[in-house]
Amino acid sequence: MRPRLCNLQADIVMASTPSLTATLLVSCRDRTGLVAALSNFVFQHGGNILDADQHAESESGEFFMRLVWDVSGFRLDRQATQSGIEALARQFDLRWELTFSDARSRVAVMVSKSSHCLYDLMLCQQLGDLGGEIVRIISNHDTLADVCRHFDVPLTVFPVERDQKAAAEAKQLALLGELHVDLVVLARYMQILSPAFVERWQGRIINIHHSFLPAFAGARPYQQAQQRGVKVIGATAHYVTAELDQGPIIEQDVCRVSHRDTVEDMMRKGRELERLVLTRAVRLHLQRRVLVSGNRTIVFG
Amino acid sequence: MRPRLCNLQADIVMASTPSLTATLLVSCRDRTGLVAALSNFVFQHGGNILDADQHAESESGEFFMRLVWDVSGFRLDRQATQSGIEALARQFDLRWELTFSDARSRVAVMVSKSSHCLYDLMLCQQLGDLGGEIVRIISNHDTLADVCRHFDVPLTVFPVERDQKAAAEAKQLALLGELHVDLVVLARYMQILSPAFVERWQGRIINIHHSFLPAFAGARPYQQAQQRGVKVIGATAHYVTAELDQGPIIEQDVCRVSHRDTVEDMMRKGRELERLVLTRAVRLHLQRRVLVSGNRTIVFG
Amino acid sequence: MRPRLCNLQADIVMASTPSLTATLLVSCRDRTGLVAALSNFVFQHGGNILDADQHAESESGEFFMRLVWDVSGFRLDRQATQSGIEALARQFDLRWELTFSDARSRVAVMVSKSSHCLYDLMLCQQLGDLGGEIVRIISNHDTLADVCRHFDVPLTVFPVERDQKAAAEAKQLALLGELHVDLVVLARYMQILSPAFVERWQGRIINIHHSFLPAFAGARPYQQAQQRGVKVIGATAHYVTAELDQGPIIEQDVCRVSHRDTVEDMMRKGRELERLVLTRAVRLHLQRRVLVSGNRTIVFG
Amino acid sequence: MRPRLCNLQADIVMASTPSLTATLLVSCRDRTGLVAALSNFVFQHGGNILDADQHAESESGEFFMRLVWDVSGFRLDRQATQSGIEALARQFDLRWELTFSDARSRVAVMVSKSSHCLYDLMLCQQLGDLGGEIVRIISNHDTLADVCRHFDVPLTVFPVERDQKAAAEAKQLALLGELHVDLVVLARYMQILSPAFVERWQGRIINIHHSFLPAFAGARPYQQAQQRGVKVIGATAHYVTAELDQGPIIEQDVCRVSHRDTVEDMMRKGRELERLVLTRAVRLHLQRRVLVSGNRTIVFG
Repeated sequence: MRPRLCNLQADIVMASTPSLTATLLVSCRDRTGLVAALSNFVFQHGGNILDADQHAESESGEFFMRLVWDVSGFRLDRQATQSGIEALARQFDLRWELTFSDARSRVAVMVSKSSHCLYDLMLCQQLGDLGGEIVRIISNHDTLADVCRHFDVPLTVFPVERDQKAAAEAKQLALLGELHVDLVVLARYMQILSPAFVERWQGRIINIHHSFLPAFAGARPYQQAQQRGVKVIGATAHYVTAELDQGPIIEQDVCRVSHRDTVEDMMRKGRELERLVLTRAVRLHLQRRVLVSGNRTIVFG
Repeated sequence: MRPRLCNLQADIVMASTPSLTATLLVSCRDRTGLVAALSNFVFQHGGNILDADQHAESESGEFFMRLVWDVSGFRLDRQATQSGIEALARQFDLRWELTFSDARSRVAVMVSKSSHCLYDLMLCQQLGDLGGEIVRIISNHDTLADVCRHFDVPLTVFPVERDQKAAAEAKQLALLGELHVDLVVLARYMQILSPAFVERWQGRIINIHHSFLPAFAGARPYQQAQQRGVKVIGATAHYVTAELDQGPIIEQDVCRVSHRDTVEDMMRKGRELERLVLTRAVRLHLQRRVLVSGNRTIVFG
Repeated sequence: MRPRLCNLQADIVMASTPSLTATLLVSCRDRTGLVAALSNFVFQHGGNILDADQHAESESGEFFMRLVWDVSGFRLDRQATQSGIEALARQFDLRWELTFSDARSRVAVMVSKSSHCLYDLMLCQQLGDLGGEIVRIISNHDTLADVCRHFDVPLTVFPVERDQKAAAEAKQLALLGELHVDLVVLARYMQILSPAFVERWQGRIINIHHSFLPAFAGARPYQQAQQRGVKVIGATAHYVTAELDQGPIIEQDVCRVSHRDTVEDMMRKGRELERLVLTRAVRLHLQRRVLVSGNRTIVFG
Repeated sequence: MRPRLCNLQADIVMASTPSLTATLLVSCRDRTGLVAALSNFVFQHGGNILDADQHAESESGEFFMRLVWDVSGFRLDRQATQSGIEALARQFDLRWELTFSDARSRVAVMVSKSSHCLYDLMLCQQLGDLGGEIVRIISNHDTLADVCRHFDVPLTVFPVERDQKAAAEAKQLALLGELHVDLVVLARYMQILSPAFVERWQGRIINIHHSFLPAFAGARPYQQAQQRGVKVIGATAHYVTAELDQGPIIEQDVCRVSHRDTVEDMMRKGRELERLVLTRAVRLHLQRRVLVSGNRTIVFG
């Protein structure tokens, strides 16, 4: 009698806010009748739609939708919900992803020596705002061991020696698998991941680049910015793809600089941006608000 | 055979982009099944949903929705569409407003001597971005006659003499009625409208206040800002209510100032803000993106 | 007795605010004692320093200074002031420029068909904020004739035919010379100036580029931005150099965009940025607040 | 032979960047000749001016200046420098403060239960950016003991019981004295300091208020903001004066909100602002960039 169980669980969760919700992300080519079909599906089984967002890419005609409903009165259990959506997916040729709010995503954060982005992610988690759980820090150095201990998250150090990168990556990949990680966050991790690694984690690695992409891709962006004499600097969080700094952008932000700002000043101001932008992007991803369309993202904010 | 006529018209419109669309704004208390019912209504009569936004006020429980659909293949004419929605409105106890994209709202702009907000609204209209038509400028001075002529919009001057305000307002109200005006924009109009005027045009007067409300309500906000030594100044576009500067806020924006900025500098920077903020707010209103909830607005941006 | 004359004039100007001021811009390599020497020069002749800004480029060691003083009590006339500064310039090996606040710079604005930047410059001038005088509009089209008439500035149209560009530029250069123009502003002028033109007007042509440079240089930046899926767009005002979109940046600003923004939306939002950024840059230049250092600018804001 | 000693020390410091500098803040009524006199003083004794900022309040006529010079070649020791400036101060009737870059200010941070501002200040110090040293955390709770331990700064807990506030403040004041504290930072300290405390630490207590003052002074500003329906929220760092939330503002910043943002969302976004704004204000103060003029600040950024 799974449905009953599910409802029981939902009721218990309901006692404390917020209620248990289901989030459905879909994309498809032909959407005729899709909104009505999905709304009906939720309504007919006793769900209450809390949030609905949609977007049609004008050029490709591709359609994207995010639907959130309150599961507390829903008459289908998770298995049956899944099956119901599978049926609709066949009918409308949907790509889709269904998640429940009590299933917290498991996050691994990869770092090198800089602590600012790691602190920010950890604090966000500590305040209960992240929308997932950081289950492991992976680093090529032990510089941030103390920070990991403070936040009580285990650190695994895999030194990345020259010519031994493949071996290090093999260990990293094995660990990510063991830990059932859903998302990898590169929080100023100073190694470039191999195409094979990136391919395997397609759409599930978020990196922070310390410039307003596409300006100043590659190394030493603040030096580049200072030399070009820009009046605004930025930071960009994006999904990692095989091409360096070219993946779909999730979030960007900027701040003003002037002739008075040295490269060091830009680095300091940039650190503020990097951590804010990265944490925002990770939250958006974990709240299932980001859909990828080619090299762009749809962000239902 | 009205529907056919309607489709013909729609087809002709379709030849040139953009297509003819219907926009429905609704608000209600109990939304159970509402999204499904509205989606079905559109789908079953051949409409294609282009945009759907919704919002539930957590405290009041009130629910707001904006639904836009392509009317080109819709099998109901406007009368029948109206009737169909009326039926749903009774069922769900909806407040609602239905508009079609070819029915351009008629706008009157009230000004005094400052030109910057008027220019901005006019330029926006000239570029085809405003979403309505400015049919008349009303002023208590003839200072801006030349600007009105340049943009080819008739100006009517009603001097507002001391103790003759009621008479002037009577003429203004008569003119607004004659011209079938839908929206009144106060573009730095330096007279306070009477409660009776405001009451009669409830929710259809937009004012620009030259501060970040609720800071510095009332007169001379830049002087107030300079004396308080703030580091950021702002501008606020809001619906006018009987209480001065207290109506629902549609849009705000800010810019930085420093100790170097005199009151004159703040006024200059503020002019940039005022015109941008006012024009944005008017566009949002004319595109039927703003709903009022008590003293707040829901803006489906 | 020129000094007396000068003082008389200054007194007359003083009667109405603001007072007559002198602005000195200098740059040099070795600044030891320079601030003291310049301060003394002003003080010893009865000038009152109103504003002083300075900046040392850490890498090159080059030093920049802007000094503004009240000339109302100054005991040197303009000629003698000039000579005095020449003597200091020899001593400290200065590059320098001296201007008086009653000598308004003469500005020519080059446009094509877009009006938004032209309107903004004109309005700024009308409000007395520009710090110079727009003496002529030059265009390759007569599209904006009506705007020029409205603001009462003469328009000269030089059509730029394919293969006749050199001839058109010769006429443009002749006109700029005749009119004693100090600054050329490219307000969305859609022709690329020849290297010879640029060379001759080095440091005195300001262009607005509709992207956040160095991102999206070249043609159709909003299309580029939309395809790259950025979350922020920008505009850049810069001095024109022989290399397209590579000159020293004076001012930049940005605004947020999302997946909802079409290229047209970006163009609309971009127009707001373009005009604000261009007008700000022109004002900064005309107020003698901008110094060029290699490919960077020092902006004493 | 103190000067020699001083130079020796300066040389040693010079070996590692940055060099030892002196910073002089002055304010006065009549500035005629002041810039020249101060510049000469520095130049004649072998100092090299690195930075000079000045500002005249147009209404009060009060004049403010900040002068930074490289002490490495300066021929006066600190005592003699002090005496020299004292002489100038008598001549020009100056209020003044002289500091050397190797004398790090001692900072006490007062907190309650919220950690976000404390983390930010600590991280800023850890990165060497703060410009002072946090020597003690004082709290009315032991909630943040773990954070203090992590950053290796001692925590002193003085519980503030109802009706025992005066006793608690007496202990706080005694501790601040013992520790030779220069600046007290209220990093979301949830107690209101008594007028006597504030009076004694006039101009040396910085508070963060979680609204854009003067909007939403007092308690629960995010609730106030949500009820008023503003589209932008902010945070304000200010010196504490006897009147709650009315002291001179050092720094403010804002971010956009919409109808979708609950009070909890505003609190989350606000936390980002609060910590950034507070840390910036503390840095500006510690770098001797802030001067108070009545209820305004001059910030030489």
